[in-house]
Amino acid sequence: MTYEFDHHTAVHPNGDGSFAAELDRGWVVGGGVNGGYLLSLIGTALRATFPTKPDPLAVSAYYLSAGTPGPAEIAVDVRREGGSVATASVELRQGGETRIAALATYGDLDRLGDDVRTTAEEPVLPPPDECVANTLSPQEILEMAPMMGRFDMRFHPDHVGWVVGQPSGRGEIAAWFRLVDGREPDPVSLLMVVDALPPVTFDLGLMGWAPTLELTAHIRAKPAPGWLKVRHATRNVAGGMFEEDCEVWDSTGRLVAQSRQLARQPRPA
Amino acid sequence: MTYEFDHHTAVHPNGDGSFAAELDRGWVVGGGVNGGYLLSLIGTALRATFPTKPDPLAVSAYYLSAGTPGPAEIAVDVRREGGSVATASVELRQGGETRIAALATYGDLDRLGDDVRTTAEEPVLPPPDECVANTLSPQEILEMAPMMGRFDMRFHPDHVGWVVGQPSGRGEIAAWFRLVDGREPDPVSLLMVVDALPPVTFDLGLMGWAPTLELTAHIRAKPAPGWLKVRHATRNVAGGMFEEDCEVWDSTGRLVAQSRQLARQPRPA
Repeated sequence: MTYEFDHHTAVHPNGDGSFAAELDRGWVVGGGVNGGYLLSLIGTALRATFPTKPDPLAVSAYYLSAGTPGPAEIAVDVRREGGSVATASVELRQGGETRIAALATYGDLDRLGDDVRTTAEEPVLPPPDECVANTLSPQEILEMAPMMGRFDMRFHPDHVGWVVGQPSGRGEIAAWFRLVDGREPDPVSLLMVVDALPPVTFDLGLMGWAPTLELTAHIRAKPAPGWLKVRHATRNVAGGMFEEDCEVWDSTGRLVAQSRQLARQPRPA
Repeated sequence: MTYEFDHHTAVHPNGDGSFAAELDRGWVVGGGVNGGYLLSLIGTALRATFPTKPDPLAVSAYYLSAGTPGPAEIAVDVRREGGSVATASVELRQGGETRIAALATYGDLDRLGDDVRTTAEEPVLPPPDECVANTLSPQEILEMAPMMGRFDMRFHPDHVGWVVGQPSGRGEIAAWFRLVDGREPDPVSLLMVVDALPPVTFDLGLMGWAPTLELTAHIRAKPAPGWLKVRHATRNVAGGMFEEDCEVWDSTGRLVAQSRQLARQPRPA
């Protein structure tokens, strides 16, 4: 069987280093196709480009225009391959318009050392059954974000006050996360997970779509099967923009991905 | 008069969208030329490329090979210009070898909103005169890092135990910072400041050069004149790599820059 996520992120080599893809409408959110999903598409193309270095270590994406459901092209330009890592410049385009310009360094996570001296602290969440499921989202959120249908998310009850007009004001959202079809996480799917939660600005009472200017993700280890814990937060809302830091922890308690994005604040409705 | 920093970061248009530069040997550190300095050179070339959008908002640099003192070329490929921001792909090359592949989005920091809802906390440092000056660095550090001669840095006394073999083990270094020639900070010089401190791994007792794989900086406001406070820290040392998060605060107490880099851990000496 093919999982939904693998079907939606499939890429087909054009024979010239570029790949054809189809942006699925199941990933629409706000005014476009989710940026994390597009990052996983780019990640799949790069995995095919570097068979002996199949894992993203660092990926930086600059979002130039909003993606729409339909055909897309992913052009890969290898900038350096040698030693244990490879770096490429990548563009995702639709109809001649660049949606994303990205840089990425790939390697083999299995060949890294096994030292772990993480001092970051794993998010504390009640058990999934005591959290708030995304299926309970208000209808307006589900309509704005068909993408939510791809996920089984369980939000920390303290982080969903915005649903009833009572945001915590802390600028933090944490949730359990898994794909709805049961597909287990891997390094490429983590590129999507870091941009899957609702904008952290919801927790500040700033509702609306928050367009990403730039997102960089570091994948630090292969995730174990099972639930992921995802937490993101902002500490610098200023000048019409905000940064959003995301951490993804796997079921063994390992910090497997870190990302930061710079986004525009949603305009007041 | 021309300040040393402006002299060292001068770029000369070649007329084809690329720029000629000279990597000054005053910025050598460890096995190459400091990556933050190279980022400021790229930043200067982009400022010349976008006269009406002169400020870096986000810059992501992938370090492919170590820069050496001498001539360099900075090739700028504008990927999108329109509205309030412009995005370019940039490469810094020496003798046909790519040192850095970068993406950057530029804009006009003066045209952003004046809202500030920062919840990050400014580093607490004793007054500069009660901190430890970089001029007191051990001879071996000064020889490994001629770059230190460009700076007037005053380290938090709690963060320099590594100098006498007693690192705190916390993975944090904070310091007052200004350029030694009195040049005031600006958005482009902040691209250098975020990579100016000694590797945060020193504070973990891991001495040695820590090569950067990727560094992304967000410049969030124009810095006021005067001392900067710079703090960086790591929370995820694992698999032979670590992330380094840097914050730069200006003399008015505003968080003006945030960066994160992914670097390789120094090899044991």
